[in-house]
Amino acid sequence: MRILFITESGFEDTELICPKYRLEEEDFQVDIAAPDWGEVKGKRGYTVSANLEIGEAEPEAFDALFIPGGKAAEKLAMHDSVIEFVKKFGQLDRPIAAICHGPLVLAAAGILKGRRATCYYKVSYKLEEAGAVFEDSPVVVDGKIITARQPSDLPKFMKEVIKVFKAQ
Amino acid sequence: MRILFITESGFEDTELICPKYRLEEEDFQVDIAAPDWGEVKGKRGYTVSANLEIGEAEPEAFDALFIPGGKAAEKLAMHDSVIEFVKKFGQLDRPIAAICHGPLVLAAAGILKGRRATCYYKVSYKLEEAGAVFEDSPVVVDGKIITARQPSDLPKFMKEVIKVFKAQ
Repeated sequence: MRILFITESGFEDTELICPKYRLEEEDFQVDIAAPDWGEVKGKRGYTVSANLEIGEAEPEAFDALFIPGGKAAEKLAMHDSVIEFVKKFGQLDRPIAAICHGPLVLAAAGILKGRRATCYYKVSYKLEEAGAVFEDSPVVVDGKIITARQPSDLPKFMKEVIKVFKAQ
Repeated sequence: MRILFITESGFEDTELICPKYRLEEEDFQVDIAAPDWGEVKGKRGYTVSANLEIGEAEPEAFDALFIPGGKAAEKLAMHDSVIEFVKKFGQLDRPIAAICHGPLVLAAAGILKGRRATCYYKVSYKLEEAGAVFEDSPVVVDGKIITARQPSDLPKFMKEVIKVFKAQ
């Protein structure tokens, strides 16, 4: 199974690194895409290498999408290339996971309309503006869309993420 | 299952936080002990709360031990209360996991003598001085002792940790 992470500088370190290791533990392949190819730095200083430029990535090549949080996700939501990719991926009916500010990218791509979802509490109004039904729960699963609020939700979130990804 | 993490300030953040979330995903209870009770800070700035002072902890109360790395582990290896606890725990024949500088604590407690183990490459000589058989592998399992070298080993390490902990 091939998973694509989408991020950029300013990601919440634990929301990218812990899930990446967790998915690799399942022997899934994890690729990282950013608006620009190369090193991407988390807000606590961890770095990861974005091996793909989002504008060059093919949605069909990936079995599932994962969007970590942090301010990175707010910036991503303003990138046309990111929104275009996420829109196309959303039409494939494949699993999409997002945590904290990550769901804002899904909202901006219009794929949360009428769907149950959660996110970091300070930006929940943005989900509602995009037509989502916001729920204040550690993890919300609506079909193949799995969302969570914050790093402390990672245990419950990853349990559901693995379940939905494996069922794909 | 109740797991005890032993650490102190200066831990390698991902080596504590990612495994903690991973074990909580399995519905294990995670307690954190430090030489002094209270907030403990990782080298990248993440904080966790040590709910136990190691001198007050009872080895029999825990099903397994987990020692993350970072400079914290080198400091821990010089604390009498830590060494005494780990020695006692080692006599219980229960699982012990340690990563990076974490295995130095096991070495200092004398429980790696004649055992296969790994650790961060720069301090491998300390394992050998303590009578361990050092192996440069992502994860080494010798009975109920599971060791790993560095953060990038976490996927393979945690797979074995979960296996050994669950078999207990």
